[in-house]
Amino acid sequence: MVGVGLIGTGFMGKCHAIAWSAVSAVFPDVAKPRLVHLGEVNEELARRKAGEFGFAKASGDWRAVVNDPEVDIVSLTTPNQFHPEMAVAILEAGKHLWCEKPMAPSFAEAEAMAAAAKKSGKVAALGYNYIQSPAIRHIGALLEEKIIGEVNHLRIEMDEDFMADPEALFFWKHEAASGYGALDDFAVHPLSLVSALFGRVASVICDMAKPYADRKLASGGRRAVETYDIASVLMHLENGIAGTLLVNRSAWGRKGRIAVQIFGSKGSILFDQERSNEFQLYLTSDRPTEQGYRTILVAPHHKPYDLFVPAPGHGLGFNDLKIIECHELLTRLEGKPARLIEFAEGLEIERTVHAMARSFEEKRWVDVR
Amino acid sequence: MVGVGLIGTGFMGKCHAIAWSAVSAVFPDVAKPRLVHLGEVNEELARRKAGEFGFAKASGDWRAVVNDPEVDIVSLTTPNQFHPEMAVAILEAGKHLWCEKPMAPSFAEAEAMAAAAKKSGKVAALGYNYIQSPAIRHIGALLEEKIIGEVNHLRIEMDEDFMADPEALFFWKHEAASGYGALDDFAVHPLSLVSALFGRVASVICDMAKPYADRKLASGGRRAVETYDIASVLMHLENGIAGTLLVNRSAWGRKGRIAVQIFGSKGSILFDQERSNEFQLYLTSDRPTEQGYRTILVAPHHKPYDLFVPAPGHGLGFNDLKIIECHELLTRLEGKPARLIEFAEGLEIERTVHAMARSFEEKRWVDVR
Amino acid sequence: MVGVGLIGTGFMGKCHAIAWSAVSAVFPDVAKPRLVHLGEVNEELARRKAGEFGFAKASGDWRAVVNDPEVDIVSLTTPNQFHPEMAVAILEAGKHLWCEKPMAPSFAEAEAMAAAAKKSGKVAALGYNYIQSPAIRHIGALLEEKIIGEVNHLRIEMDEDFMADPEALFFWKHEAASGYGALDDFAVHPLSLVSALFGRVASVICDMAKPYADRKLASGGRRAVETYDIASVLMHLENGIAGTLLVNRSAWGRKGRIAVQIFGSKGSILFDQERSNEFQLYLTSDRPTEQGYRTILVAPHHKPYDLFVPAPGHGLGFNDLKIIECHELLTRLEGKPARLIEFAEGLEIERTVHAMARSFEEKRWVDVR
Amino acid sequence: MVGVGLIGTGFMGKCHAIAWSAVSAVFPDVAKPRLVHLGEVNEELARRKAGEFGFAKASGDWRAVVNDPEVDIVSLTTPNQFHPEMAVAILEAGKHLWCEKPMAPSFAEAEAMAAAAKKSGKVAALGYNYIQSPAIRHIGALLEEKIIGEVNHLRIEMDEDFMADPEALFFWKHEAASGYGALDDFAVHPLSLVSALFGRVASVICDMAKPYADRKLASGGRRAVETYDIASVLMHLENGIAGTLLVNRSAWGRKGRIAVQIFGSKGSILFDQERSNEFQLYLTSDRPTEQGYRTILVAPHHKPYDLFVPAPGHGLGFNDLKIIECHELLTRLEGKPARLIEFAEGLEIERTVHAMARSFEEKRWVDVR
Ligand SMILES: NC(=O)C1=CN([C@@H]2O[C@H](COP(=O)(O)OP(=O)(O)OC[C@H]3O[C@@H](n4cnc5c(N)ncnc54)[C@H](O)[C@@H]3O)[C@@H](O)[C@H]2O)C=CC1
Ligand SMILES: NC(=O)C1=CN([C@@H]2O[C@H](COP(=O)(O)OP(=O)(O)OC[C@H]3O[C@@H](n4cnc5c(N)ncnc54)[C@H](O)[C@@H]3O)[C@@H](O)[C@H]2O)C=CC1
Ligand SMILES: NC(=O)C1=CN([C@@H]2O[C@H](COP(=O)(O)OP(=O)(O)OC[C@H]3O[C@@H](n4cnc5c(N)ncnc54)[C@H](O)[C@@H]3O)[C@@H](O)[C@H]2O)C=CC1
Ligand SMILES: NC(=O)C1=CN([C@@H]2O[C@H](COP(=O)(O)OP(=O)(O)OC[C@H]3O[C@@H](n4cnc5c(N)ncnc54)[C@H](O)[C@@H]3O)[C@@H](O)[C@H]2O)C=CC1
Repeated sequence: MVGVGLIGTGFMGKCHAIAWSAVSAVFPDVAKPRLVHLGEVNEELARRKAGEFGFAKASGDWRAVVNDPEVDIVSLTTPNQFHPEMAVAILEAGKHLWCEKPMAPSFAEAEAMAAAAKKSGKVAALGYNYIQSPAIRHIGALLEEKIIGEVNHLRIEMDEDFMADPEALFFWKHEAASGYGALDDFAVHPLSLVSALFGRVASVICDMAKPYADRKLASGGRRAVETYDIASVLMHLENGIAGTLLVNRSAWGRKGRIAVQIFGSKGSILFDQERSNEFQLYLTSDRPTEQGYRTILVAPHHKPYDLFVPAPGHGLGFNDLKIIECHELLTRLEGKPARLIEFAEGLEIERTVHAMARSFEEKRWVDVR
Repeated sequence: MVGVGLIGTGFMGKCHAIAWSAVSAVFPDVAKPRLVHLGEVNEELARRKAGEFGFAKASGDWRAVVNDPEVDIVSLTTPNQFHPEMAVAILEAGKHLWCEKPMAPSFAEAEAMAAAAKKSGKVAALGYNYIQSPAIRHIGALLEEKIIGEVNHLRIEMDEDFMADPEALFFWKHEAASGYGALDDFAVHPLSLVSALFGRVASVICDMAKPYADRKLASGGRRAVETYDIASVLMHLENGIAGTLLVNRSAWGRKGRIAVQIFGSKGSILFDQERSNEFQLYLTSDRPTEQGYRTILVAPHHKPYDLFVPAPGHGLGFNDLKIIECHELLTRLEGKPARLIEFAEGLEIERTVHAMARSFEEKRWVDVR
Repeated sequence: MVGVGLIGTGFMGKCHAIAWSAVSAVFPDVAKPRLVHLGEVNEELARRKAGEFGFAKASGDWRAVVNDPEVDIVSLTTPNQFHPEMAVAILEAGKHLWCEKPMAPSFAEAEAMAAAAKKSGKVAALGYNYIQSPAIRHIGALLEEKIIGEVNHLRIEMDEDFMADPEALFFWKHEAASGYGALDDFAVHPLSLVSALFGRVASVICDMAKPYADRKLASGGRRAVETYDIASVLMHLENGIAGTLLVNRSAWGRKGRIAVQIFGSKGSILFDQERSNEFQLYLTSDRPTEQGYRTILVAPHHKPYDLFVPAPGHGLGFNDLKIIECHELLTRLEGKPARLIEFAEGLEIERTVHAMARSFEEKRWVDVR
Repeated sequence: MVGVGLIGTGFMGKCHAIAWSAVSAVFPDVAKPRLVHLGEVNEELARRKAGEFGFAKASGDWRAVVNDPEVDIVSLTTPNQFHPEMAVAILEAGKHLWCEKPMAPSFAEAEAMAAAAKKSGKVAALGYNYIQSPAIRHIGALLEEKIIGEVNHLRIEMDEDFMADPEALFFWKHEAASGYGALDDFAVHPLSLVSALFGRVASVICDMAKPYADRKLASGGRRAVETYDIASVLMHLENGIAGTLLVNRSAWGRKGRIAVQIFGSKGSILFDQERSNEFQLYLTSDRPTEQGYRTILVAPHHKPYDLFVPAPGHGLGFNDLKIIECHELLTRLEGKPARLIEFAEGLEIERTVHAMARSFEEKRWVDVR
C-alpha cells in the first residue's frame, strides 16, 4: 500500500486529496493508498485538513512530511514559488513526487528540479490533468489511427475571465515578479495537450497585451500593471505542423475554455474543455450529402470513462481528471508505462513558454531549442 | 463516525462507494464515514469489492450487513425487485437506509416500504441524484425568487438509447414482469425534478409505444415484446400548471438526456442533463434588443459546486451528484433539514407512475390520488 | 408569362411579392412572371404597394384583381377570415390560387373552399413554406431512403413568444371567435411537415392551457381570455407511428422554434427552424466509438439550395422558402408534379386540428376521420 | 429609376441580379431599378441570363454594357483579374460602380482603380456583404454604445473547406499568379468587418502554411503548390487594440465560418457567420449568479431585418445581405450617407493584405502604412 504525503490543501490540494480517496474505488487494479501525512502552513490548519481528507498525521512544517518514512510519494500543491525548494527536498528524501504544474517560476529552477528528479531515480510527475480527459485521450487515439488523415494545422485557445474586472485591485499577479502573465498561467496547459498529441514546439513568435494599463491600489492611487493577460502565439511544431496558441485570462464570459481545432487531410476534430464531455469530429469518409461535425458524447468506450460510469453521456467532472491522473501515477509507480508528463518533458513545456516570452520581447521568431 | 454498509456493487453500488469515500474530503462539515461492511451475491465478489472500495468486512449474505451492529446506515443498490425485502429488513434492524430509486416494482410493495420506514423512525432516503445537481438547485432558487415570474408551463423529456437496437436479443426488460418499460426506468427521474421544483402531479393521460413488436430469442425464434420503450404523458400538476413528460429508452442518439423547459410570465429556463454543467435563462427584464437565452456555466456561486472546484466552468460529473446526495444524507442524519426525497415523497412519485400506466390502459385521464 | 394578382400586402403579402420578383432569377427553368394587379383595402395603399412591389395595376377592391383577365393566378394573403369568400371567388373566376395557410377559421368553410377548388379544376395551393426548406426536403429524402431505418417515434414542438407578455392588452386573438388559440396559429405548420414527411394523423388527444386567465382591456378593467396559447397533443399517425405535437405561442424566449425529433431503428434526425440552415443526423452505421449527432450545414447538394448559393453553409432565409414555394407553384402550373400542399390535403390538416380541439373539449381520444 | 448594368452572371452575378430584382419590394424607400443591360462572355449566355434575370438587353461584349447610355450603374461581378480594366472603363464612362471584392490582384492595380474612382466623382462601392448583416450592424451599435466597455482584444477566424481535398487536381488557385492564397480569398472579408467595427490595422506579422506541398496534374504527374491555404496573423489596430486574424480555406468541416470574438472591459461579443441569424453577448452588468452568453436571435429591432420579416428569429439568408447592400448603394446614389466600403477604404484593406504577405516573406512585424 502506497503511503501518501500531501503538502498544500488549497484548490489543488483538495483535488489531490479527493483523488487519493477515490482512486481505488474507481480503478480496481490499484490498491487503496494510505493517507499518511499532510503538511500545511501551520499545525492547526494541517490538523483540520487532515481530518477532512482522512490523513493520519498532520504537520505545520512541510519538512515533516518529506521526512516521514511512511510516506512513499508526496503530492506537492503549494504555489509555484515553493515548488523548487520543496520538490528537490522531496526527491532528495527518496520520495516519488506528484507536483502541480508549472514546475517553477524561472527556467533555471525548473532545470534544477529536472536534474534532481533524474538524479533521484524517482518518479516526478506533473499535474497536467487535461491530457487525462477521456475525450482528449480518444482524440489522441483517433490521430494515431489517422482517422482525419495527416494533420496539417492546429489552433488552441485557452481563456478565462478571472482577471477581467478592471475595477479589481492591483495584486501580486500584476507584478512582473509573478512572471509574464497569461503565458505562465495558461500556456502550459495547451502545451501539455500539444505535447501529448503532437510533440514539441520548434519555433514561436508571440504578441502580448494588457487589457488595463494600470489598476487601483488597495492603499489608494493606481499602479501600472506589469504582466500581460493576453498572449497570442504563432508556432511551428517539430513535426512540421503550423498552428496558433491564443490565451487570455481577461476574457469576459470564458470560464474554463480550452478550445482545440485540429485540421487534417481527411477531416477535423474540435474540443472545448467548457463542454468537456463531448468532442466533435468531421470525416470526409461520410457520405458528402451528410457530412457534418458529429458531437460525440463521452461514453464507456472512451477509456477510462467506463470505470466511472457504465452508461454513456452521463459526464465526468474536473476532479475526475485528477483521479485518472492519480491512477496513471500509481500505474507508473508499479513500473508500468503511464500517460504522464514527467519532469523531463515538463521542462520542455517550460522552455517553450520562456521562448514565447523572449520572442515577444525581441519582436521576432525564436527557436525553442 | 457513521458506520456504513453497502449491499450491491454494480453501477450504483460503485457510485455509492465513491461517494462514501470522497464525501468528507469535499464537504468539510461532515466527518469521514467508516466503511464497515459490504454485501454481495457471494463472498468472493464481496471480498474483492470490499478491497477495492475500502470496506472492512465482506459477506456473501446481505443479511450479515443488515445485522452488523457497527453499521448505522445501509446503501441499498441491488436491482429493484430486491428492494422491498431488503429495505424492510434494514429498517426493521434499526438502520438508516439509502435506497436506490425506484422503490419497488409494485405499488403495494412501495407502500409496505414506506410503512416500514415510518414505523422505524429511521431515515429512508432515495437515490434521486438529479435533484442534487447545482444547476437544478439554482434553477429551484430562481423559481422561488420568481425570476421568470409565475410558471405557467412545463415540458420534460428523458431519453436514452440503450434499448434502441432492434437486433439486440429479447431479455428480461422486455417481459411484462419487469414493469411497464420506460415509465419505470425513466419517468421517476423527471418526476423527482417535478417534485423538487414544483410539487405533485394531480392528473395524467399517458400513451405508450413499442418501437419493435418482437425480438430475437437467444434460443432462436422471436418473442413478442411486452414492455413499452416510449411513454408520452400530458399532465396537470397540483399547483395548476399543465405540462408534458416524454420518455424514450429507444431514442437513438440520446445518451443521458433529461431536457427541461420551464415557461413563466417573465422568462423561461432550459436545462439538459447531457450538458449538465450549464443551464439557460431567458429574461424579459433584459433590454428587448438583447434578449436571448443566457448559457450559464455552473460556477462556485451555484452551491455546492464551490466545494468541488473553486473555479467556474470547470465542471462536475455524474458521480459528484451522488457525493452531494451523500452529504445531504449525512446532514439529515444529524437531524438537520436536507434536500432528499424520502420514502413518503418517493411513494407519491411511484403513485404517479402507476396512475400513468393506468391512464394508458384505460385510454383516459386519471387522477393520481 | 404567368400574370400574377396579389391580394393583401402585410407580412405574407410582401413575402409573396418578393418571391414573385425573384423566382425566375433564382430558378432558370421558369419564365419571369408578370406582376399584373394588386389589391388592398383602399386604393391609396394598393397604389403605394404596387409601386414598391412592381405591380402594374392597383385596386382598392379585391374583386378587381379577381376579375382582371390578365391575371392567371392570385396570391391570397389576407387574414384567415377573408380566405373563404375570396378563395371561392378567385377559383370561380377561373384563376389559380396561392392561398396562405390555414384555409379558414371553420372546418365547414374549409370544406367549401376545397369543393370550389375541385370544381374549378384550377390549382389551389396553400402557403406551407416550411415543407420547402432544403433541410426538410433532404430529411424527407433520407427518410425515404430509410437511412435511419423504420421510423418509430416522432416529436414536434412549435413555439414563439408573441403572446407571452402578460401585460399586453386583450385583443382579438384572445376572443373565442378567433379560434382555439395556438392550435390554429401553429399546429397547422407542424402538421404540414407531418403530412409531407409521414402522411396523415389517425387519432389524437389534446390538452390546452391558458398562461393568463384574463388580460387588461384598453378601455380599463380586465376580460377573461377565451383562447388557449398552449396545446399539447398525443397522436397516432395512420402509418402506425405514435408521436407528440406541442405548441405554445406564449413561450418566452422562443422566436420561431419548430423542433422536430424523428427516431428510427437505425438512427435519428433533429431539426429546429430557429437554426434552419442545419439539421442533425445520428446513424448507428457510424463506428460505435464515434457515433454522435452530425450537425449538417445546408449545402448545394441539398436541393434547391444550390440555385440560391453555390457555396455550402452560407445560409438561406425565411423569404427564400417562399421563393422555392413559388417555383413549385409555377412548376405545378405547367402540369408537372410539385411539392405543394393543395386544398385537398390542406383540408385534412384542418380536419386534424379540429379533431384535436374536440378531443380537448371531450377529454378523450378522438379519431380524426 | 436607376438603370442597371450587370457584367458577369456567376455566383455573385446572380446574387446581384436577385438583389436588383427584390430591393424595392423589401425597401419601400427606393424606387424599383430598371434592369437594362447584361454582359457576359458570349451573346448566347448573355441572352439566356438576361431572360432569367429580367434584363432588357444582352451583350457578349462587356463594353456594350459600359457604353449603354441607359445604364447608370454597373454591377461588376467578373473574376478579380478583370476588375482593373473593367472598373476603370466603367468609371471613365461616367457610370457608378458596384464592384465585387477584392479590388484587384495587385496593389498597384487597386491603386489605379481608386484613382479612377476619385477622378470620376462617381460612387464606386465594393461587395463586402458581411458588414450588412443585421447581427454585425447591431454589434456595431453595441460597440458604439460601449455596452461591453472599452474593447481590448479581438479574434477573427474565417474558414472554409473548398480547397481541403488533397486528391483535388492542381488548378489556377494553386499558382502563385493567383495571389497568396487564403490571404486574398478570405482575409479581406474579416478585414471589412474590422474596418466597419474598429477602423484600420496598423501593423502585422503573418505566418502562412500549405497543407499539401504538391498536387496531381490533370495531365498526370504532380506539381508543387505555390499558394498558401492557411494564414495566421497577429495584428495591432490603429486604435491600439491587439488581435489575431486566422484564415484557412482547407479547413475540413468549415463551410462559411467567420467567427468573431470581441472582448471588452464589461463583457464580450461573439458571432459566427455559419449561424448568422444569432450572436452572443456576455455582460458583467447581469447579476453574477446568472451571467452567461446570451444567444440573441436576429429580430425586427435589429435593422433592417424588420423589412424582410416582421417576426423575430425567422432568419435571413446570404442573398439578403446583398439586398441590404444594394439598398445602401441606392441610398448612396441619392447622396445620402450609407454603410458601404468604397474604393478609398477598400484600398486600405488591400494594403493591409499585402503588408501581411510581406511580413510573412520577411518573417518580421510590418507596418501597414
Ligand atoms: N492542474 C490544474 O488544473 C491546476 C493547477 N494549479 C497549480 O496548483 C498549485 C497550487 O495552486 P492552488 O491550489 O490554486 O493554490 P492555493 O492557493 O489554493 O493553495 C495553495 C496551498 O498551499 C499552502 N501552502 C503555501 N505555502 C505552504 C508551505 N510553506 N507549506 C505548506 N503548505 C503551504 C497554502 O496554505 C494553500 O493551502 C500551483 O502550482 C498551481 O499552478 C492550480 C489550479 C489548477
Ligand atoms: N440513481 C440513478 O441514476 C440510477 C439508479 N439505479 C438504480 O440502482 C439500482 C441498481 O441498479 P444498477 O446498479 O444499475 O444494477 P447492477 O446490476 O449494475 O448492480 C446490482 C448489484 O446488486 C448485486 N446483487 C444482486 N442481488 C443481490 C443480493 N441478493 N445480495 C447482494 N447483492 C446483490 C449484484 O451482484 C450487482 O452487483 C436499481 O434500483 C436501479 O434502478 C441504476 C442506475 C442509475
Ligand atoms: N406561411 C407563413 O409562415 C405565414 C402565414 N401567414 C398567413 O398569412 C395570412 C396573412 O397574415 P399576415 O400577412 O400576417 O397578415 P397581415 O395583417 O400582416 O396582412 C394582411 C393584409 O391583408 C390586407 N387585407 C385585409 N382585408 C383585405 C381586403 N378585404 N382586401 C384586400 N386586402 C385586405 C391587409 O390590409 C393587410 O395588408 C394569414 O392567413 C396568415 O395565417 C402569416 C404569417 C406567416
Ligand atoms: N461578396 C462575396 O461574398 C463574394 C464575392 N466574390 C467575388 O465576386 C467576383 C466573381 O466571383 P464569382 O461570382 O464567384 O465567379 P464566377 O466564376 O462564378 O462568375 C464569374 C462570371 O464572370 C463572367 N465573366 C468572366 N469574364 C468575363 C468577361 N470578360 N466579360 C463578361 N463576363 C465575364 C463569367 O462568365 C462568370 O459568369 C470575384 O471578384 C469574387 O472575389 C465571390 C464570391 C463571394
